[in-house]
This record gives sequence, structure tokens and C-alpha cells, in this order.
Amino acid sequence: MSLDLGVLISGRGSNLGAILDAIGDGRLDARVRLVVSNRADAGGLDRAARAGVPTRVLSHRDHADRPSYDAALVAALREAGAHFVALAGFMRLLGPTFLDAFPHRVLNIHPSLLPAFPGVDAQAQALAYGSRVTGCTVHLVDAGTDTGPIVAQAAVPILPGDDHDALAARVLAREHDLLVRALEWFAEGRVEVTPAADPGGRARVVVRGAHTWFGLAGGVD
Amino acid sequence: MSLDLGVLISGRGSNLGAILDAIGDGRLDARVRLVVSNRADAGGLDRAARAGVPTRVLSHRDHADRPSYDAALVAALREAGAHFVALAGFMRLLGPTFLDAFPHRVLNIHPSLLPAFPGVDAQAQALAYGSRVTGCTVHLVDAGTDTGPIVAQAAVPILPGDDHDALAARVLAREHDLLVRALEWFAEGRVEVTPAADPGGRARVVVRGAHTWFGLAGGVD
Repeated sequence: MSLDLGVLISGRGSNLGAILDAIGDGRLDARVRLVVSNRADAGGLDRAARAGVPTRVLSHRDHADRPSYDAALVAALREAGAHFVALAGFMRLLGPTFLDAFPHRVLNIHPSLLPAFPGVDAQAQALAYGSRVTGCTVHLVDAGTDTGPIVAQAAVPILPGDDHDALAARVLAREHDLLVRALEWFAEGRVEVTPAADPGGRARVVVRGAHTWFGLAGGVD
Repeated sequence: MSLDLGVLISGRGSNLGAILDAIGDGRLDARVRLVVSNRADAGGLDRAARAGVPTRVLSHRDHADRPSYDAALVAALREAGAHFVALAGFMRLLGPTFLDAFPHRVLNIHPSLLPAFPGVDAQAQALAYGSRVTGCTVHLVDAGTDTGPIVAQAAVPILPGDDHDALAARVLAREHDLLVRALEWFAEGRVEVTPAADPGGRARVVVRGAHTWFGLAGGVD
């Protein structure tokens, strides 16, 4: 089945670009029904427009609280026919009003091997820690910051002499690949989500017939 | 230069075994001057004895507090001629009395990609989290739990269907390799430790002429 996607961005939308390229190449069976940015100056809006994809700017500043902003996002996505949501550098937390509207159908990509380095500027966190291995994580979004159940992860080395830009670029190349793969698994109906067995537990994601780890010798690259 | 090693254990000492094997094979230029266990029933004591290595049992229960226990450990290691300490499954925290006696010369191996999954049973933590990539970390020991500066890391995949034993065995094979490599770097005098630049910062470890990340495609395996 084809995936009817809504993509939320806040910036240049490089992962949005990867999605649009993969759709254009026939690697991803999906249509981007709407791109929403919370910032009018997000570079990704131009990228979407060039691909002929509808765009909306919905600023959280125009809404009194998170539920009202979330409801506006949901209405715009539903109106456009989006049934699955990818966060591509969207820098706002989403609350239950949004998440309950797309249960287990909101995907995020984060530039670290979660649970390490959640939150803002994961690459700077990894460099400051002196890590040798980092990576990126595709996960379903829950109410926490980068806490949702993991779909796939890719490992990336940190090399001697890496600065922030060098590391971010290396991780970003992996992000593009991992996000597109994960979306394709959803498009193919291969993803099963098992709710947490107990209140303190975590939901589990199983992808039938796919490796969900990348960047490792002997694994899938 | 050869490394005069003290090895601290609490259990079967499989990483101790890897060290002894590597010395026996000529891969590691070191001598184990003493193996200390805090438990009399640690299987690693037999392994050490078979290799002709002196052993001591020093129980924390025979000491009133950590400084007094730490001082007993330091005295035993110094008396045996150990100048560098490897923790191989040693399950006690070491305090400043110990760490100040071997500055930047106490190495630990932990079965996760720190800072993810510190503390007890990292493999169970990784499985419970639903991670796809974990690994192991060799780091210098500081006063925290698995917080010291990183020397090297190796990534290891978590496969569908992995149980605790399967994952632990896969990580352990990497631990053996990573710990021996790291000790050899110290033996060769290739490790430089730069203290933290500011009070809240972290010390940095640079290994001259060595890759310090493993298990990644395209990297050193």
C-alpha cells in the first residue's frame, strides 16, 4: 500500500528532501500529502514547493497552548489526506492531542543511538562526551523527548579530529537512508507494534523480514 | 614497555581470561602481577592460578568503609608490583583513595555503548529498551558509575529473538578483543590523557595511530 505522508519540519528539511528523492526514484511507495513547518523561514518549504507538494506554515505562537496547536496540526494533516506523519527536524514536542490522532503512526529520526544523547544537538553531546561510536535512531513518537519505541538504528563512528559539522554530515547521510527504509517498511505493512505489557514497560516494534540495525560490519549496510 | 597489571574481579573473570590468553599468545606485552577478587568463590581465581598468577581475596566486608578497603587494595597491588589496573567484572565502586593511587591508570570494560545503559546488567537494559545497536566501552575509571573518559568502543547488533544470554555472549566476544587492544595501547605508550579543560568538563583520551571504534562497516573489525 502507498503511504499518505504528512511531514513536519522546522528547518532546511534535509530528511524531507531524502523522502522526496526516494519517492521520485521509486524507492519509497508514498505520497507526501502535506509539509507543515512551524517556522515561515524553514528552507524545507521551498524544497517541498519545488517537488509540487502542498505546504502550510502553522506557528505555535498563534496558539494559546499545546492542545490547541496540536489540534490545528491534526486538522491540517487530515484535511490534506495524510495518514502517517514523519518528523523531519521538527523542533516542537507533540502532546496527546496529536499523538492520539495518529496512534503508532508518528515517526521521528534522531541523530544518536538513543537512549544516549536525547534532546537538542545530539552530535555536540556525543563529541563533548568523547564517544567513539554514535549513530541515528528511527523511533515512534511518544509523549517524551526521544523516548518512543525504536524501529531501527544505524551506528556511525566518531573519528579523531571530527568537529561538529563533520560528524553531523556523517550521521545525516545515515539518517536519510534509515528514515527512508523505515517509511518503506510501514508502506509495505511489515511493522508490528506491541503495546507495553505492563504500565512501566515499553511498546515494542518488530519489522518482519528486515534487519533493523545498520552500519555494523557483517550487518546490513 | 611491558605493562605490570593488577586485575580486579568479582566473578568468572572471562575478561581476565582474555588478558591471560593474549599475554600467552604474545599479543599483549604485559605481566599480570596480581589478581584480586572481592569474593572467595570467584571462578576467575582458578583461571589465574592455572596461569601461575598470584591471587588475593580481599573482601569489602572485612573493612569498615570504602577508604579502608581501597587502601587494602592499593597496598596489595603495590606490593605485587602492579602499576596499571584492569577491572574485569569487578562489582565494587572505587573511591578516591584507590583512584588517586593509580591516576588515569585504572581501566574498565562495560557491556554497552556508554553513556547508554550504565550500571548493572547493561544487556538486560538494552533488551528492555528495544535497542537495535549496543556494544561495549573501555574507559578510564573515575569516581562515578561508568562515567569515566572513553578509550574505545565497539558496536554490536541486537538481533530479533535475542535473549539475554545470546546478546551477552555476542557483546562479550567484543569485550575480550577491545580490552586487550586497549591494554596494548597503554603498554605501547600510545595513550594520552588530557584533563578536563573546565570544572564541569570531561578528560579526553587520545590514542596515537589507532582506530578506537570497532564493529562498524568500513571501520576496523
